[in-house]
Amino acid sequence: MSRSGNFFEDFRVGQTFRHATPRTITGGDVALYIGLTGSRVPLHCATPFARRLGYRGQTVDDLLVFNIAFGKTVPEISLNAVANLGYADARFIEPVYPGDTLRAVSSVIGLRQNSNGKSGVVWVRSRAFNQMDQEVLTWARWVMVEKADPAAAAPVSVVPELAAQVRPEALSVPPFLQLGEYDPTSAGGARLWDDYLPGERIDHPAGMTVDDPDHTLATRLYQNPARVHFDALAMKDSQFGRRLVYGGHVISVCRALAFEGLENALSIAAINGGTHSNPTFGGDTLYAQTRVLERWELPGRTDLGALRLRLIGAKNLAAEKLDRPQGEKDGKPQYHPNVVLDLDYTVLMPRRNR
Amino acid sequence: MSRSGNFFEDFRVGQTFRHATPRTITGGDVALYIGLTGSRVPLHCATPFARRLGYRGQTVDDLLVFNIAFGKTVPEISLNAVANLGYADARFIEPVYPGDTLRAVSSVIGLRQNSNGKSGVVWVRSRAFNQMDQEVLTWARWVMVEKADPAAAAPVSVVPELAAQVRPEALSVPPFLQLGEYDPTSAGGARLWDDYLPGERIDHPAGMTVDDPDHTLATRLYQNPARVHFDALAMKDSQFGRRLVYGGHVISVCRALAFEGLENALSIAAINGGTHSNPTFGGDTLYAQTRVLERWELPGRTDLGALRLRLIGAKNLAAEKLDRPQGEKDGKPQYHPNVVLDLDYTVLMPRRNR
Amino acid sequence: MSRSGNFFEDFRVGQTFRHATPRTITGGDVALYIGLTGSRVPLHCATPFARRLGYRGQTVDDLLVFNIAFGKTVPEISLNAVANLGYADARFIEPVYPGDTLRAVSSVIGLRQNSNGKSGVVWVRSRAFNQMDQEVLTWARWVMVEKADPAAAAPVSVVPELAAQVRPEALSVPPFLQLGEYDPTSAGGARLWDDYLPGERIDHPAGMTVDDPDHTLATRLYQNPARVHFDALAMKDSQFGRRLVYGGHVISVCRALAFEGLENALSIAAINGGTHSNPTFGGDTLYAQTRVLERWELPGRTDLGALRLRLIGAKNLAAEKLDRPQGEKDGKPQYHPNVVLDLDYTVLMPRRNR
Repeated sequence: MSRSGNFFEDFRVGQTFRHATPRTITGGDVALYIGLTGSRVPLHCATPFARRLGYRGQTVDDLLVFNIAFGKTVPEISLNAVANLGYADARFIEPVYPGDTLRAVSSVIGLRQNSNGKSGVVWVRSRAFNQMDQEVLTWARWVMVEKADPAAAAPVSVVPELAAQVRPEALSVPPFLQLGEYDPTSAGGARLWDDYLPGERIDHPAGMTVDDPDHTLATRLYQNPARVHFDALAMKDSQFGRRLVYGGHVISVCRALAFEGLENALSIAAINGGTHSNPTFGGDTLYAQTRVLERWELPGRTDLGALRLRLIGAKNLAAEKLDRPQGEKDGKPQYHPNVVLDLDYTVLMPRRNR
Repeated sequence: MSRSGNFFEDFRVGQTFRHATPRTITGGDVALYIGLTGSRVPLHCATPFARRLGYRGQTVDDLLVFNIAFGKTVPEISLNAVANLGYADARFIEPVYPGDTLRAVSSVIGLRQNSNGKSGVVWVRSRAFNQMDQEVLTWARWVMVEKADPAAAAPVSVVPELAAQVRPEALSVPPFLQLGEYDPTSAGGARLWDDYLPGERIDHPAGMTVDDPDHTLATRLYQNPARVHFDALAMKDSQFGRRLVYGGHVISVCRALAFEGLENALSIAAINGGTHSNPTFGGDTLYAQTRVLERWELPGRTDLGALRLRLIGAKNLAAEKLDRPQGEKDGKPQYHPNVVLDLDYTVLMPRRNR
Repeated sequence: MSRSGNFFEDFRVGQTFRHATPRTITGGDVALYIGLTGSRVPLHCATPFARRLGYRGQTVDDLLVFNIAFGKTVPEISLNAVANLGYADARFIEPVYPGDTLRAVSSVIGLRQNSNGKSGVVWVRSRAFNQMDQEVLTWARWVMVEKADPAAAAPVSVVPELAAQVRPEALSVPPFLQLGEYDPTSAGGARLWDDYLPGERIDHPAGMTVDDPDHTLATRLYQNPARVHFDALAMKDSQFGRRLVYGGHVISVCRALAFEGLENALSIAAINGGTHSNPTFGGDTLYAQTRVLERWELPGRTDLGALRLRLIGAKNLAAEKLDRPQGEKDGKPQYHPNVVLDLDYTVLMPRRNR
């Protein structure tokens, strides 16, 4: 493999990257995203529905925005990543509409060399902007990146403090959002914010087999060039023996599977944290389970609230059979081998008395 | 599997469902549909061509409209269907343009419990509307649905009478349609309405192998959540042992294969009836054969007529080798084991002297 | 197989074909093309970027234009082609924007029967026009086509002279193009026209495995109905035993792989020549190598120049391992068995002092 992308020793705390390939998102991306996930969130499917709530038109699926913005950061941040370790403090700030153009910038906010001296952890804060230079999305992530030269000196360790969750008052609710005409029939489910209780578990019944051409199509759409997803020949000699499914697409598929049971979730307001606990491969069948973590009122709004949810994605194991996503081995927490995703995120949902 | 969707005992004659997920169809859906089928119908491909005929712009492929509208009805009607038994009296009423938003409603028009007491047949009339509440499509279908509780009482049997075919005078021809500038070169074939004779058989030469990622992409685009198409793990224990191709996509592929030989079919006006006679699986190669059933003049129009066609879809058997789509076994009609589709539909086609 | 399309004896020098299916290209095609190739050329991805250079908006990828235009010619020219022998003198004349509608015409410019009497070579010049009848693309190609009747008389041989390359003065540079605000950061690479030297070799690091559903989706999007790409059953009995990947899609994938290292190539101005030296099949992993052939100044422009490049596509062999794309056997040039594409093309690229 050629030496492209950055290696651990190339990063400095405070360094900033203006990522390439500004991207105008169109109805084409929206349609293909529906084709790839089966997503049925009405706000992202129908312009008249969106307009009745005060939006200019249908908005681009939050996770499509996330995956496109994320893809831009790969060439500089994670082309040589060994592992995508986690996400934190992702906030969806402004709606994105078809026709908007996104660009992304990232800053290095932390560095820590691993004790083996061969790799290290890089923390970055990335931000996506639209063509009016409005920030539409921000997120932190950390990745393990190889060193090109194991003899390169270790940097001073800087480990950033990241909020364990986005607080309700930090969630962006569009000021124009009005739910007076909100009709749950358009979403296909009767349950609203009031009906979910922290502690509740939802075993989403649908499963989706992800074939190699599915995830490669998705990952190319996101313009994420990480080679582990595309090059089956090179991956034959890797520890996995084959192409890996991009984790962001696992999130998208699991979110779509979790639609049934959370129909009235309007949009995603935040991703509090996330772990890709095991790899997903072409041919795996994904299932989704949701655990309701918290139910928040929102400042100044009596018509909608927020739900903090834990989305567990499992491969080749139906959700109803998954009782303990995370167990323990030798005194340390360990994920169930079928669990591929543990995502802590927050949605906005209409309340009963609007 | 979780108990979602309706079971046989949940249905009542007269019951109405307003289905979820209004959907704005865009150029993205149009492009992906071309990518999934290879369809080359000029009215659905080119705006200047459509405008010369009097349309506002290119129209959305009739079968894409059908499949998207159909998909909306699945959660309430056929999520627990054992089999999609038939279609009748489908009429394409208004053209759909990119930018239009579709919604669907269904009414139960018939019920009959099976003699085994474990399942029953449900007849529904479904209708799709655009954002101006114009009815764009109506169709009847009947499905066999399982009972959740075999002990539930049988309903009074109501079997609706459905027309064997949509009569010529019931076909919708846009009043603005003008064929003075119609140019068969744009379609790529010389034959017009006058040139087809009832009794004629056309063996369309093209074949198309449908891989699993093709039909799952299509079926997600249609937002049809029926699990038999997506969940390879659950289907391993089914009678088929694998995912099933959604029948509506079989129709779309066979119609696209039938383009060569029917190039000047402007659009589909009606589906008179249809049967998915055998299952289609990923890896099967589809072929199409057309038999011309009837040739109708249309009231008040000398520039175009209608052709009632029988479209036979066969898997893994070239059309020219298929002489008897339907045979007989033990005195009962039985489909050839390679025949997957028997569709009776009506197209509009320009006449020679316009 | 049915006798559709033209056979060698059906062609006459001077014959002209107006090909079918005018096609309005939309944002849907653009998005799906990105999904199929992972292309990241900024001019084709972002409207604000394109406008800063003087374009009306983002332009449609040159190779998407080529493949769609090419697809239109297949029914009349190459449905019965045994082999696509070569391309020459392809010039991209006008930018194509989403919303434009393309049509294509071809003229037969040469014919030569093979000595075996069973087939012959047909040369055609094809041209694509937009809805304003502006020529947007022209190209020559030659194909080997079977005779339906081996006894048919041989035509007088006419072998056209085709330029070995499009000369710099024949390249179309949009008169409105202004590079004052060109920012290489948007492309993600620092190298400009001045930095490439004839003789330089670039081993592009990325590889992409092309699965059968990828290339069939692409080839249907291009509305190219050649059966060798779609009908796995019929191809089982061919010399290859399976479906062939359409060569134009191999070009698209290799061009996308070649992005890394040629980031600031604005657009493709010409294809000087091209050979599909070996077949590509589903499951093959493609790699790309570029050799810089020539560096040209352009008349009247000091802000951009042209690079004539040789793009070598290899299957199942990383670019860095490919030293001699073409060797020799029995005194005749012979391609390395892993080389599937040898494309000579010309790109426009900003210069350092603008």
